[in-house]
Amino acid sequence: MTVTHRKQSTRVSPARHAADGSPARDGFGPATRTPSGVDPSGAPSGRAGAEAHVDGPADPPRRVSDGAWREGDPVGGRQFVHIGDVELERGGVLPDVRIAYETWGRLNEAGDNVVLVEHALTGDSHVVGEAGPGHASPGWWNSLVASGGPVDPDEWFVIASNVLGGCQGSTGPSSPAPDGQPWGSRFPYVTVRDQVAAERLLLDRLGIARVAAVVGGSMGGMRAIEWAVTHPDDVDRCIVLASTPSATADQIAWCQPQLLAIRQDPDFAGGDYYAGDRRPDAGLGLARRIAHITYRTESELDERFGRAAQLGEDPLRAGDRGRFAVESYLDHHAGKLARRFDANSYVVLTEAMNSHDVGRDRGGVQQALSRVRADCTVVSVDTDRLYPPRLSDDLHAALPVSRRAHIVSDFGHDGFLIEEDQVGRIIRDALERGRG
Amino acid sequence: MTVTHRKQSTRVSPARHAADGSPARDGFGPATRTPSGVDPSGAPSGRAGAEAHVDGPADPPRRVSDGAWREGDPVGGRQFVHIGDVELERGGVLPDVRIAYETWGRLNEAGDNVVLVEHALTGDSHVVGEAGPGHASPGWWNSLVASGGPVDPDEWFVIASNVLGGCQGSTGPSSPAPDGQPWGSRFPYVTVRDQVAAERLLLDRLGIARVAAVVGGSMGGMRAIEWAVTHPDDVDRCIVLASTPSATADQIAWCQPQLLAIRQDPDFAGGDYYAGDRRPDAGLGLARRIAHITYRTESELDERFGRAAQLGEDPLRAGDRGRFAVESYLDHHAGKLARRFDANSYVVLTEAMNSHDVGRDRGGVQQALSRVRADCTVVSVDTDRLYPPRLSDDLHAALPVSRRAHIVSDFGHDGFLIEEDQVGRIIRDALERGRG
Repeated sequence: MTVTHRKQSTRVSPARHAADGSPARDGFGPATRTPSGVDPSGAPSGRAGAEAHVDGPADPPRRVSDGAWREGDPVGGRQFVHIGDVELERGGVLPDVRIAYETWGRLNEAGDNVVLVEHALTGDSHVVGEAGPGHASPGWWNSLVASGGPVDPDEWFVIASNVLGGCQGSTGPSSPAPDGQPWGSRFPYVTVRDQVAAERLLLDRLGIARVAAVVGGSMGGMRAIEWAVTHPDDVDRCIVLASTPSATADQIAWCQPQLLAIRQDPDFAGGDYYAGDRRPDAGLGLARRIAHITYRTESELDERFGRAAQLGEDPLRAGDRGRFAVESYLDHHAGKLARRFDANSYVVLTEAMNSHDVGRDRGGVQQALSRVRADCTVVSVDTDRLYPPRLSDDLHAALPVSRRAHIVSDFGHDGFLIEEDQVGRIIRDALERGRG
Repeated sequence: MTVTHRKQSTRVSPARHAADGSPARDGFGPATRTPSGVDPSGAPSGRAGAEAHVDGPADPPRRVSDGAWREGDPVGGRQFVHIGDVELERGGVLPDVRIAYETWGRLNEAGDNVVLVEHALTGDSHVVGEAGPGHASPGWWNSLVASGGPVDPDEWFVIASNVLGGCQGSTGPSSPAPDGQPWGSRFPYVTVRDQVAAERLLLDRLGIARVAAVVGGSMGGMRAIEWAVTHPDDVDRCIVLASTPSATADQIAWCQPQLLAIRQDPDFAGGDYYAGDRRPDAGLGLARRIAHITYRTESELDERFGRAAQLGEDPLRAGDRGRFAVESYLDHHAGKLARRFDANSYVVLTEAMNSHDVGRDRGGVQQALSRVRADCTVVSVDTDRLYPPRLSDDLHAALPVSRRAHIVSDFGHDGFLIEEDQVGRIIRDALERGRG
């Protein structure tokens, strides 16, 4: 088949953004304990400039937004490939799967310059680029791909696809099933391995046999590891940030109230809410709040917000009480995610993360990792309370060829997105290694 | 007024229990990664032997249990005092307040042997003793008060009251308002200072002028500090475990999804659910899950449960999927709390914790703590991720007379309840100091 690789502008402003497109400082200003510095507007919903979704006049009107990208929405930088049926690890087949992806640079003659970038839970294919029609947020690693940058598109062919089960163009619960209706509650259980299998089919369709590097953080790191274990002969480098060889009990524990928050929302309707006029935004927002706290650190939140009241509000009052600034901050992130993400995808991807265990049916984690042939770089954030550095230590120790790198950050898990300078240096170094 | 101090049996078996009465190991067996060891029964709701609530035949039938103690329920070890109206820090008056309390030992002639024990969020007056009629759980510090134990009732007169706003006999949202109907959503906002004010009135009614020691952990530690700051001349010793001089942004952040989980439960009905036949157990259970994870540690959960499946269940399946063992464990704690606690009290007490700031209207934390005259002991748990040791360091540094003690535990915040030997030694030492 013939595939056109559209080259996008790679000169992007090096804005600092946090996980999955939320700005690191969220318009909440620099770290300060004064209420006015925390939220000058006093209206959290009014300051999310980065997520303006400017639909052109030709776009069909959306009924009720559920945050999912849909046929007819502006495509933005997306390209699409139908990869056919995907056989699922836990049985069954997901038919006629479509994968949305973006690319930067060009595939070289030797086909050995592919960098596959894997997004985290609520990320998507938009690794770099502006927000605009089709893209609710600017790129989530916006300084990663740039001429002269860590991944230079003059040299590398960068591919980022929306994950299987996602909501930004690839087949997921909000996509139409064969009967034309959204999958909803009928969407099957998918594992991280299924997601990697879909990406393998995508690369096959694009005529790409091997991957010079696969790089990802958090949930994206899970796929990166799975790539290196599942296709040891096809992956030259593997860069894993703030991730783990298998989801731990603590990570599974944190996911449980998030999953319940969505499922217990009456507007979730068992997952079949697309035909109605209500969305489980409350449940999704609740899940997001829990997750967001785990993405940050105790000290950063306290340094930044302390006990400040949200401007003009009084948190020491019952019932319709006002908020502490940190509560307004969480409200902001909750509302923001609900506007750009689909609750069913959140459930499907969270359960996929829970499934993550490179050792399953492979004789355990050690045995599975021993088969990796890629030159690996294992990176943790020193303050990460969700994916603590010990997990990266374990991963590093079990990999045949691995270097251990560290990100120093006040921001915890989100440091893998926020500390772009450090991440850029680490990825640049990893790509430099093993070159001819 | 005349008050009879009933002396209870103080010989209690030194069972190891976790926060607010939940057994440290929960019937989930010793730390092990085998599914059978994690939950032999496979039915989490069936193994909560410690919380058997054996109503006698004379007790009136309960309509729908909301976990609150109510008039007509077995009193257990409780005594009651009406303390009159309580003026609230944030305005208004809570009329005709009743406080439930338990005592061990006898007030001596000098009136200088009172040890006031302050319970945590979901605790109550039942510091020691068996579970049984009126007491859903055994004592939450069951080895603390015993002849020859850390607090010997032959020497000390121990008082523990249910906190204002609670649901175990003291006036709270489930109590009747002056119109005879439960307060529900009408229950006023109370602060930790209001709770201490109610305890001061209780002691006044009992003819007690001074406190030889006030001791509490977590939320109980907040009241202990407030006692020492508000009544500097009446408190000889103050022992604060796993607590903080003021609630931090991180703690407030963790509370937010818990409060929302309850309020977003349709069965919460804005707080006025008592007349109906449904209870916001789902929301309360969700809040409890979030809280419980913060009470434990990443490593302990992973050591104990790993990725084990709940026995007979398959967690790698969509929809009606089975559970990981750690999910079953959280389900167990969620269901258990819903059976013994009232959701409105959870909200009221959580907001009271958020209010905690000994420095408010006192020139800041440093200034407030400088007025303390008690001999203080400040204790943290090394692995506490909710009340990290730095908060105890700050408290200790600002107190005029303070010793710093440390609990070493794998269990995190719950270590202040689980590590009874260490806690007992620390409290015994603190009581020994400054004696004639």
